Amino acid sequence: MSRRIHLALHPYGVGGPGQHGLWKDPLVAKNASIDVNYYIEQAKAAEHALFDALFVVDSQFINSTYPSHYLNRLEPLTLLSAVATHTKHLGLVGTASSTYNSPFNLARRFASLDHISAGRAGWNVVTSFDTGTSRNYGLDEHLDYTTRYGRALESVQVAQGLWDSYEDDAFPADVERGVFLDPSRLHALDHAGEHFKVAGPLNISRSPQGQPVIFQAGVSEEGRDLAARVAEGIYAPGGTLESAQEYYADIKKRTAAYGRDPEHIKVFIHGGPIVGATDEEARRREREIFEEDNDFASNLALLGRSFGAYDFSVHDLDAPFPDVAHLAEKGGRTGAGKIIERAKAEGLTLRQVAESVNAFRRSPFVGAPETVADTIEKWYDAGTLDGINLAFRNNDDLGRFVDGVVPLLQKRGLFRTEYEADTLRGNLGLPVPENRHTVARRSVND
Amino acid sequence: MSRRIHLALHPYGVGGPGQHGLWKDPLVAKNASIDVNYYIEQAKAAEHALFDALFVVDSQFINSTYPSHYLNRLEPLTLLSAVATHTKHLGLVGTASSTYNSPFNLARRFASLDHISAGRAGWNVVTSFDTGTSRNYGLDEHLDYTTRYGRALESVQVAQGLWDSYEDDAFPADVERGVFLDPSRLHALDHAGEHFKVAGPLNISRSPQGQPVIFQAGVSEEGRDLAARVAEGIYAPGGTLESAQEYYADIKKRTAAYGRDPEHIKVFIHGGPIVGATDEEARRREREIFEEDNDFASNLALLGRSFGAYDFSVHDLDAPFPDVAHLAEKGGRTGAGKIIERAKAEGLTLRQVAESVNAFRRSPFVGAPETVADTIEKWYDAGTLDGINLAFRNNDDLGRFVDGVVPLLQKRGLFRTEYEADTLRGNLGLPVPENRHTVARRSVND
Repeated sequence: MSRRIHLALHPYGVGGPGQHGLWKDPLVAKNASIDVNYYIEQAKAAEHALFDALFVVDSQFINSTYPSHYLNRLEPLTLLSAVATHTKHLGLVGTASSTYNSPFNLARRFASLDHISAGRAGWNVVTSFDTGTSRNYGLDEHLDYTTRYGRALESVQVAQGLWDSYEDDAFPADVERGVFLDPSRLHALDHAGEHFKVAGPLNISRSPQGQPVIFQAGVSEEGRDLAARVAEGIYAPGGTLESAQEYYADIKKRTAAYGRDPEHIKVFIHGGPIVGATDEEARRREREIFEEDNDFASNLALLGRSFGAYDFSVHDLDAPFPDVAHLAEKGGRTGAGKIIERAKAEGLTLRQVAESVNAFRRSPFVGAPETVADTIEKWYDAGTLDGINLAFRNNDDLGRFVDGVVPLLQKRGLFRTEYEADTLRGNLGLPVPENRHTVARRSVND
Repeated sequence: MSRRIHLALHPYGVGGPGQHGLWKDPLVAKNASIDVNYYIEQAKAAEHALFDALFVVDSQFINSTYPSHYLNRLEPLTLLSAVATHTKHLGLVGTASSTYNSPFNLARRFASLDHISAGRAGWNVVTSFDTGTSRNYGLDEHLDYTTRYGRALESVQVAQGLWDSYEDDAFPADVERGVFLDPSRLHALDHAGEHFKVAGPLNISRSPQGQPVIFQAGVSEEGRDLAARVAEGIYAPGGTLESAQEYYADIKKRTAAYGRDPEHIKVFIHGGPIVGATDEEARRREREIFEEDNDFASNLALLGRSFGAYDFSVHDLDAPFPDVAHLAEKGGRTGAGKIIERAKAEGLTLRQVAESVNAFRRSPFVGAPETVADTIEKWYDAGTLDGINLAFRNNDDLGRFVDGVVPLLQKRGLFRTEYEADTLRGNLGLPVPENRHTVARRSVND
């Protein structure tokens, strides 16, 4: 295997969790998160730098304490369709919830994006973190963790089944014979599972990459299992080198255990590189950013998000972390459970917990270009990542990485010098899944 | 009032109901219906001709007997987002079913399109004609007619409520005061109705046109009532001059009865103009098209679509029209009821009924440019239309209308010579709805 790192760009807009101060940055337009031209420019910059994909996250619940980018943002599929016609190679990965969408609708929209982009669509499957989302979809209670992950798996399986509705030779469009469709190449799905009944067929054919690429972001037991079963890309948390190694090895092992080639699941860790002319300058920029973002009220709200948008401000800040175990259990959010455990183990007050929630976003990739390239190489060689999902505060930060670090990675043979393909699968080195009905017919004929 | 006709373009792709032969036309690309560039070119041509909007229809159920365009087409919202960034004035009206979508999801996607297009989005609300759609969404039975129309009305009301989540001054983004959002300008909806419970708020702000424009295509009693209540545009069937007059007058009267300005609902009739150098040449082209489309098996399948994709080929073609009343009642499809009535009244065989299903698409606008302009003017003055939803077989047909008829309409003062506005509302002469919360606060302050 050649050593090769994949890079995706995760546009922050005016700032998500842990980037409370980003909207104040004079280099960030105040309407970035709803400005299609912001995304088109980000995508063009990413494509110019030969990145694999644009990665668009999402959520569907807000209240006024939520991060700026969450309050007012474009819906990922409409956004990525608009970006598609302004790019040619860049993958377009959009987040959509399997908890509050029908698989037929999802399958159709991603297939449509895959055609519009000529084979560059990816679906980042999420189960909706915010418990309040349920109330936007007619349910008083958020679906529980097990149900959500069961739905996620079945959603992907249904979507993949629907994406095979037409075999690749379904449309001869033969004027002489008067045959547009060959009906023997059209297949209903007739799925009846635990969560969904979907007859099909889908009303759209396969695109050049056969099927959109499945991404996932699983950390919990259920999340890792889902990823190992169906994901072809993962947005992983990163964390420390050791925790990233553990995660990476675990995912690859689980994937192999499901009979899949572990090379066919690409682990992207979150990375917000901060590049300076010198290590010291980069450290200074890191401190500046930390200052900008270190807003206590926002941190308290961010903490609350892990407990179902709970308002922690009703508690005494300097008393021990309150008993909110009942909020953590609902929906099985593992993050909330971990916060409680740590608060108990270390005897932290509410204030101390709130002050620490932002720390997890700290990037290992800080320094002069040579330092950052060294660190990336070290992490790659340590078996922590196949790719990095890069997030930058502004275009200057993006530029310093692209101009400073990317050429070093290229020189070391760690990053491409030209696109390998026009599809996301092609650039990620993922196989094009053959249509299941074509395979079945061939095996009958053999 | 100045006399002013609005024009929309309804792209046929490779051919929908009644255009069975269109895919064979050498001027139509075999992949038109899934080629984003086909739509971008159609949109650019429409914008060059100063049309009001691109109008994209939709459906979500197929089998192998369905029209070519239905079998394999892009999803409207992703399609229109891609088109948005290649146009500046053209309205972008997309069809989406209120029967098999959540209003939160719909509100969000159309709001996103409205931002991406800077105020040119329209939602054509449909309730899903094909009974088989239900089986793609987990239901064994199609929701009945009354339920579907009840959902449609409530969906629009919920979406409009969600679109007012933010007042126009909700985001001061004031760096000095450190205020991105003014929380007093953010409003949850807390809707609990017969069909939906939706808490809100929506996570996207209003666009330049305040809210996307609501289109509808109601012919039945329920459809007309829905249109009169909430529609700002209608895709009307047209038919004869007399039936169009009846429909137009009825819609305007019903709209006024709901306390709305009848000028604020624009009736577009379907029109597939056929323009030739002479009347005779146009008639010849009309006959050619009829020949191309007159495929008996396709007509039989098209007939079956009105009865839940029923396979009429199991019946004797030359026996009296079979008793399929039980299929017509299911879901209350009025079209099916009318077919049965007529077959009975006129004593038609199945073959005769199948041969006649295509006739309803016959356009009144056939002839030399002067003749077509005269007919349009006559229909306009007779009170049948505010606009025409134009569909053309291919770009030559489109070109003959744009180059031949449009200048005549302009000369007569019936069509614009430049866009009045950059938004769909602006060009249609529809008011921008003021945010309900802004209105409420002002009335409290008065």
